[in-house]
Amino acid sequence: MTNGFTLWFTGLSGAGKSTIAEIVGRRLEDAGRAVEYLDGDVVRTHLSKGLGFSKEDRDTNIERIGWVASRLTRHGAAVLVSAISPYEETRRKARGMVEEFGSFVEVYVEASVETCAERDVKGLYEKAFSGEIKEFTGVSDPYEAPVNPELRVDTETLTPDESARLILEKLAELGLVEDEVPA
Amino acid sequence: MTNGFTLWFTGLSGAGKSTIAEIVGRRLEDAGRAVEYLDGDVVRTHLSKGLGFSKEDRDTNIERIGWVASRLTRHGAAVLVSAISPYEETRRKARGMVEEFGSFVEVYVEASVETCAERDVKGLYEKAFSGEIKEFTGVSDPYEAPVNPELRVDTETLTPDESARLILEKLAELGLVEDEVPA
Repeated sequence: MTNGFTLWFTGLSGAGKSTIAEIVGRRLEDAGRAVEYLDGDVVRTHLSKGLGFSKEDRDTNIERIGWVASRLTRHGAAVLVSAISPYEETRRKARGMVEEFGSFVEVYVEASVETCAERDVKGLYEKAFSGEIKEFTGVSDPYEAPVNPELRVDTETLTPDESARLILEKLAELGLVEDEVPA
Repeated sequence: MTNGFTLWFTGLSGAGKSTIAEIVGRRLEDAGRAVEYLDGDVVRTHLSKGLGFSKEDRDTNIERIGWVASRLTRHGAAVLVSAISPYEETRRKARGMVEEFGSFVEVYVEASVETCAERDVKGLYEKAFSGEIKEFTGVSDPYEAPVNPELRVDTETLTPDESARLILEKLAELGLVEDEVPA
């Protein structure tokens, strides 16, 4: 069985997590890997319907993603999680579950609130600034930046393709993909 | 990648689902398969904390198990689900999710309420009969027996080992395991 791993993208809404995850995932698929996307929003419909955005509910959501990621990692998948996952301790719990079976690679997808707000086509930040949406990470709810992630990509200066390339290089460096995966 | 499948054990509490699943799982592991157990009770702690036993909550729980089973099936696991899963329509939904990626084998683990109550070391049935536990499947909550399961094992007449053997034979017949898995 192929060695599974979980690539965990954390960062603000609009930082570029899903966009980069899709590029990385396509490259991995092209190289023959079985990829599984666990997107925070998608998971909320399948696993966490009814949960809100309190710290407790966010933690429950992330722990569920971590648990599913750990099962899939065990079976050799390349699991790509895109979830704001604002709390360091909860990310650490997810790491612990995954590392029982494979590698956990935390990627901090970094961009300022201002940049994310500028990019925001859905107008979520505007509603967060006006108070119409409450408990919005980075505006009215905390985001604890990773202290020691495996990788940090600054999407204010890097294009999504450039970020994806750095991530694939990191995966190769960690021995998680063959060198021939085209970065 | 190995072809994944989900073996779905449905039946009353105490019918023998988990016991038989463990025997089948061990045989599959001995034959080199990667096995994943999704036990209804265990899943409730990881995915469905806070859900109760109303029809809606039971359905949500089973749909979550079905979703996770489908992801794992996709990655080649032999997924063994043991869950009362009392509603036909919800089992059908789980089947639909899994069959996108592999085979779904429904096993009806059959025993009468009376037999299950006699076996019940935890005294759950007694509490259900007295009304102390409400919404107890087979006593005060419905159980819709599978109309057309891939296999039916009657645990009033078969030992767990005999049931496991029938299941392994069925898996071989369906081409889901090599013939050399010792039944």
